Amino acid sequence: VFSLQLQTVTLIPGDGIGPEISVAVMKIFESAKVPIQWEERNVTAIQGPGGRWMIPPDCKESMDRTLIGLKGPLKTPIAAGHPSMNLLLRKTFDLYANVRPCVSIEGYKTPYTDVDLVTIRENTEGEYSGIEHIIVDGVVQSIKLITEDASRRIAEYAFEYARNNQRNSVTAVHKANIMRMSDGLFLRKCREVAENFKDVKFTEMYLDTVCLNMVQDPTQFDVLVMPNLYGDILSDLCAGLIGGLGVTPSGNIGANGVAIFESVHGTAPDIAGLDMANPTALLLSAVMMLRHMGMHDYGKKIETACFDTIRDKKVLTGDLGGKSKCSEFTEEICRRVRDMD
Amino acid sequence: VFSLQLQTVTLIPGDGIGPEISVAVMKIFESAKVPIQWEERNVTAIQGPGGRWMIPPDCKESMDRTLIGLKGPLKTPIAAGHPSMNLLLRKTFDLYANVRPCVSIEGYKTPYTDVDLVTIRENTEGEYSGIEHIIVDGVVQSIKLITEDASRRIAEYAFEYARNNQRNSVTAVHKANIMRMSDGLFLRKCREVAENFKDVKFTEMYLDTVCLNMVQDPTQFDVLVMPNLYGDILSDLCAGLIGGLGVTPSGNIGANGVAIFESVHGTAPDIAGLDMANPTALLLSAVMMLRHMGMHDYGKKIETACFDTIRDKKVLTGDLGGKSKCSEFTEEICRRVRDMD
Ligand SMILES: CC(C)[C@H](C(=O)O)[C@@H](O)C(=O)O
Ligand SMILES: CC(C)[C@H](C(=O)O)[C@@H](O)C(=O)O
Repeated sequence: VFSLQLQTVTLIPGDGIGPEISVAVMKIFESAKVPIQWEERNVTAIQGPGGRWMIPPDCKESMDRTLIGLKGPLKTPIAAGHPSMNLLLRKTFDLYANVRPCVSIEGYKTPYTDVDLVTIRENTEGEYSGIEHIIVDGVVQSIKLITEDASRRIAEYAFEYARNNQRNSVTAVHKANIMRMSDGLFLRKCREVAENFKDVKFTEMYLDTVCLNMVQDPTQFDVLVMPNLYGDILSDLCAGLIGGLGVTPSGNIGANGVAIFESVHGTAPDIAGLDMANPTALLLSAVMMLRHMGMHDYGKKIETACFDTIRDKKVLTGDLGGKSKCSEFTEEICRRVRDMD
Repeated sequence: VFSLQLQTVTLIPGDGIGPEISVAVMKIFESAKVPIQWEERNVTAIQGPGGRWMIPPDCKESMDRTLIGLKGPLKTPIAAGHPSMNLLLRKTFDLYANVRPCVSIEGYKTPYTDVDLVTIRENTEGEYSGIEHIIVDGVVQSIKLITEDASRRIAEYAFEYARNNQRNSVTAVHKANIMRMSDGLFLRKCREVAENFKDVKFTEMYLDTVCLNMVQDPTQFDVLVMPNLYGDILSDLCAGLIGGLGVTPSGNIGANGVAIFESVHGTAPDIAGLDMANPTALLLSAVMMLRHMGMHDYGKKIETACFDTIRDKKVLTGDLGGKSKCSEFTEEICRRVRDMD
């Protein structure tokens, strides 16, 4: 007898609506008979030796073993000195690439159609170095740190992503006209890496020009790669073009094969527990995860069921313009998944 | 006999299409009988004692005397070490506030309607400090400098602008969750200044959230105030919402009463001299200038003639979707201005 070896995924349900949208995703995965098993873990920051903030050891241990995580929203700590859990996760697992495919969803109207681009954000350095000083009273400096290694690594990731996902072009986004040395280094590495990917078109564009062009015609863009802060901005801007964070998936790719996929919307405490939340962003992140794990067919099936449900407009949560509950929307997707068999 | 004392304005026509759109503005001003006289000056950077780059003394002298400038596009120097003329002008005259009203133009279709907001950008410090170092091979730092004085000054400018222009709210745009000290200082000054302007509503928002919300519904914004780089990005993004840099005016306000108004589009060398350029951005910048000088009626008249021409759609330059020449578009505006008498 064979025993089916199920791959394990660490599930971090998160706060607020996190648990209920996680349940939704688990149900849909079950209906698709995805051969994975979930290992649920909590993340609240704890203080280790010397007061250093860290994620709970059992979560770290799980991720180190499974290498793959799916994560709901985490509430932003208010206590001063308390780190953002998202930043702590990026740091703990060296999640150096944030990847966000932004694709227009048929049937969900926004001012734009046919958006189909991917933002790839360097996730570990730049303006997020955390190094700041008071020079004299009333004069503060923040340090933006750009390294050759991190720049090359993210550029390589972007070009490999483009090649592996049948994308035609990579645009490096920068302000090397102003930050000649730091953005200059980033840009130089992109140019160098581009030399090794002659099959992918390479262009470079100022961040301000990208923003201007993006809102005028996003269809001109394909894969965009950029330093940390620019990615923070552009990835949210692009999410806005296709309908917001409620429908935008996100993946964080780390060194050593680790990856965490996550919805990037908030915890929505006002509707938490009321069966009103929209699980789409977490579900589409889970679909990204399946593709990352090589389970393309399962990914396609679930994605199709989700998009069909939205296009059909009959069973939608409130934020998508409908009147249905989270559980009804989920059940509709499950039904479509089962019907595909 | 009285001799009418005409106020003098320094005109910097600029490069590429700069001269022809400057002629267009002068013609329209003449048809409106605006009581100003132009003093034309060139700016190409020259090297002073010790190799320091500076703007030509006769331009500096003119601006110091007239205090008001109107400027066309300047070509970006390609020589390494050569400064951006725009940056040099900001520095020379301490033009600390860049102001860009973005208002939807009736008849000029974009994905958005009813945009009516103003971005106010700190123009002197932040990421534009120009201070960068190589720490070790492959590791570069750029310094973002935020000062109490510059932050207070721009916050005060924004609130005064809001009050004087019947605007209801000011939003401070920041990433103080990441750059706690530098953006934190900026934000603190905004909050302090807000205390003195109880008639203006004050809100604060993360830059990424602003970008997301902006492309989803720009009508929720009014006056936005922000550090240098964020302003660079957001001002171009917002220009994109209403049709691009070809129709967006811009003003740079300095200390000691100096102000330079400018179109922020490029020099368009490919169509320079062909009577094809669109003078709208420079014209609307000149209208901003008239309002700044207290000549509201002249400003209103010219603005109305320009918007009527665009709404009417009969005489438009190519970029606006028409087939007319720059001179024809200009003459149409002149005709409408004269008809208002
Ligand atoms: C939560 C916050 C630290 C974060 C960031 O600024 O990176 C967020 O905006 C994001 O994009 O994940
Ligand atoms: C020309 C360049 C230096 C400039 C900037 O980055 O500020 C431009 O983008 C602007 O907004 O005026």
